[in-house]
Amino acid sequence: MQFNYPNGKQNTYKNNSQQSVKTIQFGKRGMSFETMLNESNDFYNARDIAVVHKKPTPIQVVKVDYPKRSAAKIVEAYYRQASTTDYNGVFNGHYIDFEAKETRNKTSFPLKNFHAHQIQHMDKCNKQHGICFILVYFSELNRCFFLPSSFLIAFWEESERNGKKSITLQQIEKHSIEINIGLAPQVPYIDALTAYISMSKTSKEKLATNE
Amino acid sequence: MQFNYPNGKQNTYKNNSQQSVKTIQFGKRGMSFETMLNESNDFYNARDIAVVHKKPTPIQVVKVDYPKRSAAKIVEAYYRQASTTDYNGVFNGHYIDFEAKETRNKTSFPLKNFHAHQIQHMDKCNKQHGICFILVYFSELNRCFFLPSSFLIAFWEESERNGKKSITLQQIEKHSIEINIGLAPQVPYIDALTAYISMSKTSKEKLATNE
Repeated sequence: MQFNYPNGKQNTYKNNSQQSVKTIQFGKRGMSFETMLNESNDFYNARDIAVVHKKPTPIQVVKVDYPKRSAAKIVEAYYRQASTTDYNGVFNGHYIDFEAKETRNKTSFPLKNFHAHQIQHMDKCNKQHGICFILVYFSELNRCFFLPSSFLIAFWEESERNGKKSITLQQIEKHSIEINIGLAPQVPYIDALTAYISMSKTSKEKLATNE
Repeated sequence: MQFNYPNGKQNTYKNNSQQSVKTIQFGKRGMSFETMLNESNDFYNARDIAVVHKKPTPIQVVKVDYPKRSAAKIVEAYYRQASTTDYNGVFNGHYIDFEAKETRNKTSFPLKNFHAHQIQHMDKCNKQHGICFILVYFSELNRCFFLPSSFLIAFWEESERNGKKSITLQQIEKHSIEINIGLAPQVPYIDALTAYISMSKTSKEKLATNE
């Protein structure tokens, strides 16, 4: 299956010989972060650990043909910009909502990966007591991080003043929970989420005790 | 905007003169349930009452053209069957997940409106303590119901034994919370949801007291 995005980027390495060569060159596992994550979601889903799905890519359909005796064929359509994050679902009573991003960069993560309305969406979900975060995968380092949206939102707002366009790896290391890329699931982000929930509870309890 | 579904049905009344005539004939408001619901979600979203979005229709893209200086154009694509429900989101710490269905039928709601994997998806979300339900709109009666998924799932499983293919209006009246179609929002389903959550709490507390 080939999956194309508005920017012309092809997101799976299949049918994309150039990227295949690159992944072999750099000795990485040769699988896109999206694929790794979809397989992880299948893993969690099959075991009743969490129900998380990637939302379909929003497409504006303009023209459809209805050939006799066969499926409707879309003959003109365009990619639309997503107004929310790519993933959401439920884990043990918690609404979870996240965006997953892969970068070839080795020292920082560029903010241009996000749109203002995605940040706004996460902010709105937080207000409803959902748990929002981003998963950042540094493909060249094979390192993955669970970064709470609170940090991203604060960084985004500051960037409008200070002009900083990237989060450094050091900042990510400091403010996120690292996820050890594994085999089954490949991206065990529910472990990081569980740790995050338990940390949040502790800090809430501390706050409550101080009151 | 024209929105086409795999079955060739056009879902908004615009650009569909036949349906427009019908809606005028029957004196209904002439707006599809989907549109009413999307406007209701916008209403809730703007007021920070709940964050709920309709998921994009899943489309399998086969061929894309990349014209110079203009947006990528999809020239061959097909509708895929949705593997989950159409709507999900977060309301005051609760994960909510639902399917919205409109029927012209006046006495019953046909089960053929659902696919087995949608029922399975709701079952899985319930296990994760999400709140799953369906909104059924009888357009000819202008009546709308909030039906908890527990009833739908049980009915679905029984239907495999007893062959019953429709839920009668009487059964829906008995097992659901009626939503009064209004103006802002047009489909105030969060009221029904709030009543349902409070009922569920009461029955859980009763159960706890009995233990």
